Amino acid sequence: MSRPLAIALLLLMLAPPACRPGDRAPAPTPPDRGRLTQVSVINALLLGRYDGVTPARGLLSHGDFGLGTFDHLDGELIVLDGRVYQARGDGVVREVVDDLSTPFAVVTPFEAEGRFPCPEVASLDQLDARLDAVLRPGNAFYAIRVDGTFTSLTLRSVPRQEPPYARLAEVSKRQSVWTHRGVSGTLIGIRCPPWAAGLNVPGYHWHFLSTDRHVGGHVIDCQLGTARVAYQRCRSWLIELGEPAGLDGADLGRDLGGDLERVERSRKADPPGSKGAR
Amino acid sequence: MSRPLAIALLLLMLAPPACRPGDRAPAPTPPDRGRLTQVSVINALLLGRYDGVTPARGLLSHGDFGLGTFDHLDGELIVLDGRVYQARGDGVVREVVDDLSTPFAVVTPFEAEGRFPCPEVASLDQLDARLDAVLRPGNAFYAIRVDGTFTSLTLRSVPRQEPPYARLAEVSKRQSVWTHRGVSGTLIGIRCPPWAAGLNVPGYHWHFLSTDRHVGGHVIDCQLGTARVAYQRCRSWLIELGEPAGLDGADLGRDLGGDLERVERSRKADPPGSKGAR
Repeated sequence: MSRPLAIALLLLMLAPPACRPGDRAPAPTPPDRGRLTQVSVINALLLGRYDGVTPARGLLSHGDFGLGTFDHLDGELIVLDGRVYQARGDGVVREVVDDLSTPFAVVTPFEAEGRFPCPEVASLDQLDARLDAVLRPGNAFYAIRVDGTFTSLTLRSVPRQEPPYARLAEVSKRQSVWTHRGVSGTLIGIRCPPWAAGLNVPGYHWHFLSTDRHVGGHVIDCQLGTARVAYQRCRSWLIELGEPAGLDGADLGRDLGGDLERVERSRKADPPGSKGAR
Repeated sequence: MSRPLAIALLLLMLAPPACRPGDRAPAPTPPDRGRLTQVSVINALLLGRYDGVTPARGLLSHGDFGLGTFDHLDGELIVLDGRVYQARGDGVVREVVDDLSTPFAVVTPFEAEGRFPCPEVASLDQLDARLDAVLRPGNAFYAIRVDGTFTSLTLRSVPRQEPPYARLAEVSKRQSVWTHRGVSGTLIGIRCPPWAAGLNVPGYHWHFLSTDRHVGGHVIDCQLGTARVAYQRCRSWLIELGEPAGLDGADLGRDLGGDLERVERSRKADPPGSKGAR
């Protein structure tokens, strides 16, 4: 072979791979910016539809930040910084690396569009009020991240259920509640407008994960030390409706606001367990 | 230049363009299968939010089949076979090729997953009842296409509005209503479960476009000749929430079921116009 031809063939071999329509490697689609994606609707969960319908780790294709629960209501689901965590009813927190599924979850690809220091509020209600005053959220959906130290933090989780499932308001009577003091970590919050009732939780819905990833759960109350808020307005809302079995037959149009109130913030009369700071 | 080198350079020039990460041409993302995408929520429209928030032709990136309305409530919007049509208040139907926008619309990439011949129903209510009996839709969302001949067809459209906008129930008192006989064409239907109230139209929502594309509008009633039904169950539901201006301030949580009832199927007491078949 002549030397120039050899050089030419070498050049061809070194040329980058050709781009032909149709043979492009299927790149994973990045989640849509500012989209809130949820699996199922909250009324289905309130009515006891606890069977997982989609892989929990599959949520990561829709976002890196969010909250929810697991198949058989096996603890609180937390998505933070692109990882999925399970805060179980026995208080153990672990990263989900297996094929656990979820019957209800809400996630978004979190990109802060604003930040502000958070005042040292004495309760979760005060935090909500503060956010209302700053964000004036009205009809908007928000994802809100609060990083800081918590003087006090009251969390709950729920024990794994077996069918036939009781309604969530019933199950929450047997929830585990813990109060932690002096813990640092992140509140993962989703704020929905009042008219999202039945589909998602109206107002602010908070889960928590500690910086050391050992403490987590659904937030019933908290007292903040030094903290900062980052927020993102969500401009589209995707509801994965799932297959017939997940929703059919359930009377999803019922007003379950009373159930939700009991489930979201109640500590119940007689807390079975209380732990100090870890 | 030696001949082999010249050949080599020619080969290099003829090589397909290199595929480097980052410089890939942005291919349009195909719409997600079975996804129902809507712009805004029905309560915003009922309350008089008629300003367009997104280009009507932009709907085509979310689906080729659907219905809605236009900026300033300027007629009925119909998406069929990948084209957008406007059925104006004066009865004129035209394909939208310009930058008209929409304040509310619902579309899906229609792929029939089932078909059946439609009985010769004497009314739209009978059609709905027949579909309920066959599909048993329960909590599901459906897109439904009915192609056939219509013994009788009662359509309405609305005249373009100017701000300050009246509520839709008020505007519909001045709607135009036409009855056509012996027309062939397509019913474009979206079926939502009862619990979608406030966000979309619960039950069946029908628009029509004739085969010759000269007749179209929102369907108030119809009597079918020979027709066939094709349907698609929608497995995800995307709501484009838009920017603050579109929704903020509106009391979207109100029960506007009475307004909707008046708007959807009422012919009003004194129809101002009636045309024969075209």
